[in-house]
Amino acid sequence: MAIEAMLAHAVDQRVPDWLDRQRISNKLAIEFQGKQWTYRQLYERAGLFAGTLKSLGIMPGDRIALLARHGLVFAATVHGVIQREGILVPLNTRLQPVELAFQLHDARVSILVFDSAHRELAMQTTKALMELQDAPPLHLELNGERWDDQVTPVYREYIDLKATQCIMYTSGTTGLPKGALISFGNHLWGALGSAIRLGVQPNDRWLTPLPLFHVGGQSVLLRSVIYGTTAMIHASFDPVEVNRAIDEDGVTLLSVVPAMLTQMLRAKTKAYPTTLRNILLGGGPAARSLLEVCVKENVPVSQSYGLTESNSQVATLGLEDSLRKLGSAGQPLAFTEVRIMGKDGLVPSYQEGEIILRGPTIVSGYAHNPKANEQAFRDGWFYTGDIGYVDDEGYLFVLDRRADLIISGGENVYPAEIEATLLTHEDVVEAGVAGMADERFGQIPFAVVTLRAGATLNQEALEEYCRQRLAGYKVPKRIVTADALPRNASGKLLRRELHSWL
Amino acid sequence: MAIEAMLAHAVDQRVPDWLDRQRISNKLAIEFQGKQWTYRQLYERAGLFAGTLKSLGIMPGDRIALLARHGLVFAATVHGVIQREGILVPLNTRLQPVELAFQLHDARVSILVFDSAHRELAMQTTKALMELQDAPPLHLELNGERWDDQVTPVYREYIDLKATQCIMYTSGTTGLPKGALISFGNHLWGALGSAIRLGVQPNDRWLTPLPLFHVGGQSVLLRSVIYGTTAMIHASFDPVEVNRAIDEDGVTLLSVVPAMLTQMLRAKTKAYPTTLRNILLGGGPAARSLLEVCVKENVPVSQSYGLTESNSQVATLGLEDSLRKLGSAGQPLAFTEVRIMGKDGLVPSYQEGEIILRGPTIVSGYAHNPKANEQAFRDGWFYTGDIGYVDDEGYLFVLDRRADLIISGGENVYPAEIEATLLTHEDVVEAGVAGMADERFGQIPFAVVTLRAGATLNQEALEEYCRQRLAGYKVPKRIVTADALPRNASGKLLRRELHSWL
Repeated sequence: MAIEAMLAHAVDQRVPDWLDRQRISNKLAIEFQGKQWTYRQLYERAGLFAGTLKSLGIMPGDRIALLARHGLVFAATVHGVIQREGILVPLNTRLQPVELAFQLHDARVSILVFDSAHRELAMQTTKALMELQDAPPLHLELNGERWDDQVTPVYREYIDLKATQCIMYTSGTTGLPKGALISFGNHLWGALGSAIRLGVQPNDRWLTPLPLFHVGGQSVLLRSVIYGTTAMIHASFDPVEVNRAIDEDGVTLLSVVPAMLTQMLRAKTKAYPTTLRNILLGGGPAARSLLEVCVKENVPVSQSYGLTESNSQVATLGLEDSLRKLGSAGQPLAFTEVRIMGKDGLVPSYQEGEIILRGPTIVSGYAHNPKANEQAFRDGWFYTGDIGYVDDEGYLFVLDRRADLIISGGENVYPAEIEATLLTHEDVVEAGVAGMADERFGQIPFAVVTLRAGATLNQEALEEYCRQRLAGYKVPKRIVTADALPRNASGKLLRRELHSWL
Repeated sequence: MAIEAMLAHAVDQRVPDWLDRQRISNKLAIEFQGKQWTYRQLYERAGLFAGTLKSLGIMPGDRIALLARHGLVFAATVHGVIQREGILVPLNTRLQPVELAFQLHDARVSILVFDSAHRELAMQTTKALMELQDAPPLHLELNGERWDDQVTPVYREYIDLKATQCIMYTSGTTGLPKGALISFGNHLWGALGSAIRLGVQPNDRWLTPLPLFHVGGQSVLLRSVIYGTTAMIHASFDPVEVNRAIDEDGVTLLSVVPAMLTQMLRAKTKAYPTTLRNILLGGGPAARSLLEVCVKENVPVSQSYGLTESNSQVATLGLEDSLRKLGSAGQPLAFTEVRIMGKDGLVPSYQEGEIILRGPTIVSGYAHNPKANEQAFRDGWFYTGDIGYVDDEGYLFVLDRRADLIISGGENVYPAEIEATLLTHEDVVEAGVAGMADERFGQIPFAVVTLRAGATLNQEALEEYCRQRLAGYKVPKRIVTADALPRNASGKLLRRELHSWL
């Protein structure tokens, strides 16, 4: 039937633009440090920013990097880039110039947008970038919360679900960050899967103190506009301020990582109000003790398992299962499939293996990285590298984040990346990095190194060497020397055994 | 990028089976007259029913007609047919055998499933059907709430969103009912659009006293399994019983038509509890006075505009707009587009015209009806025949349901169909049918006829003549004679002028 095919084509590939649908609403779109924007205001700012991009010659499909932590600036840029049909490259503001330069170069960025707080970092980044490529990207410094209202606003009417919304960098076991291609479809299906698991209410107010340049934060921005609900943003995490917002500002949903929740529970002076429907706990498995405290104190918390490559939630434990399945990350969201891959193929329930994923929230691949794509995307499935099992009811239990991943205050830290940096130092012959427990950040990295004959360890100098090349949270907090590193028969570093040197 | 294309293909066309995802849950799936089924139980019954269909030789793609009003039987059949990958043809139990036979024939039905309450009607229908075709369909009489547990259950793992879930008949201005091809995608996108507009909560309990063989009822069944929430079903509408369920059974959402709500408000003795989040009001525009009473009495009601061809909701007024946009059917749902088509093309806001629709909840066409498809589906848009306008904020106001449609107690009654029946009577030369106001049903049909020379009107005999050929709600409640019917210059019947004969 010709009509069937025609309609199917039209409705599958695109949907009416999400922000356009909210544009006449006086409902709150964003709340940030006491400032509020309605959807009408967000729509206007996004259109002006898109117009500015256009006036600078930025075309649909161009990559636009963003270096900012200011919530309103960030939100206006995210939505402005969408309206211009550009591709956002959100940058981690904690990275060093050489790290940022790698991402700008790898993503083929046309313009670097930054707020004044990051002007210096933007300049250094561009300087570092010039060692990788001939031409610098354009620069656009945002003027606080003011947008150029002399330009003609630019708006889109439809969203192509296959199109890339952003390239988000995630490190990996190989050391070099990979740019995950997050599509609009990934956002839409993620929003819908999340709505079914956590519920959605027209009056929802979803707070996140997570950085907006990671999926956990950005997805709150995108979901809110899909739902037409309110995104509440904190510039950084302050347990007292989050608790206050829960008590006073009508927060209904909250996205945090376990280390944050631990601090919140410590700082909390009274029970949370019933307006708080759910705390979505991402960024690595929470300690059982933390979850038990939540059950005991009636704190509604949902352990979740997610990745950049799945645009956040893969599986989330429903509140009704908090007790019955304590420690599980729950069942996969409605549209996501989880399987466990053993050495010889898929394994049955309760058997450990690599967690592999399929579904419309999984990214289509990494930008400009056929080798990584070949490794991670096989036969339509995404191989996470994480280890886990599912029980006989399909609940996922994550045992180990991808080989040796350290999660420090919600940031993923990959030993391989730090080891690679240590190895560039002339005194270092071998380097092994692993995570050690930390009260505040959950985990922090430490290093064990072997030195060239005759060299002695200058811990301070080596740390400083790392600090110039790595974001602060990646710098090993302890460095010890060894005669040799623990390796298996085939010479593979056994990072878990590094703890015996502590 | 090959991987991209491959994944895109996999994730767009199919999703994990909805019931399969809920199968291990002890959560309530269905509540019907004091009986309750968990999802585990529904899953078992559906699998057994699918197994029975298979044992009878029913293959994927075969059409399975259902003649039943028993809620649990209906639900098990709907889900059983899905598990067998068949196509459901839900029959209106109020129709006459000749009307039902037309649908069975038109849909190429392989098997007629009925409950014992409809055995007689099923037999008569098959008898009538044999005048249209050579071979009768198989018969399957359901044995109360018992399912054959000797068969091997049959289950599917994935749902193809393009596949047809059911063929649902809807009458039209042309007289003959048309079978709308409702796909799984229509259900999924409808569920998601509705979730965003009305909200969805893991503990939702959605009650409908609407017939399950219409979209308003069936969509509650399908949405609930997509959400993993509870569908509450009443065998028929009783205002006292609905009010009791709201007061005592934790109903959070309710689907009714205006005539039902009017009776509920009259029967109600106290304010509804706050557990009731929203009353979704479909089946034609509500009287302004009814909506005003709801606002005054703080009854949360959302006027909605929907059709069989859109698998229920097209637009729904959010609660926050109840007052501000009283009388509007609201903005289109997130994935649905509404435009107003005038004589010379699309018209601007506030200008009246035909309401046309596009989006993933719109059916792909009518079964075996290229002519109707050609008329209704043009350039990717569905032409509703309904008249309305949108205001400058995109809110839809429905002025007239499709030409001369009578809505009687939530049932669509098409004058053309009744007129065609009257015209088959030997005494009737001309016939015109229109709706007149009715306290209980909102509207009821009446007829104006001209008779052949020498004949006199025997109202009783003519009513009986209709009763044998039309469902009771379609039989004109008054029949008057005239010398001639009101017609325009080109001879077109002016149905609205028929009221002057009353």
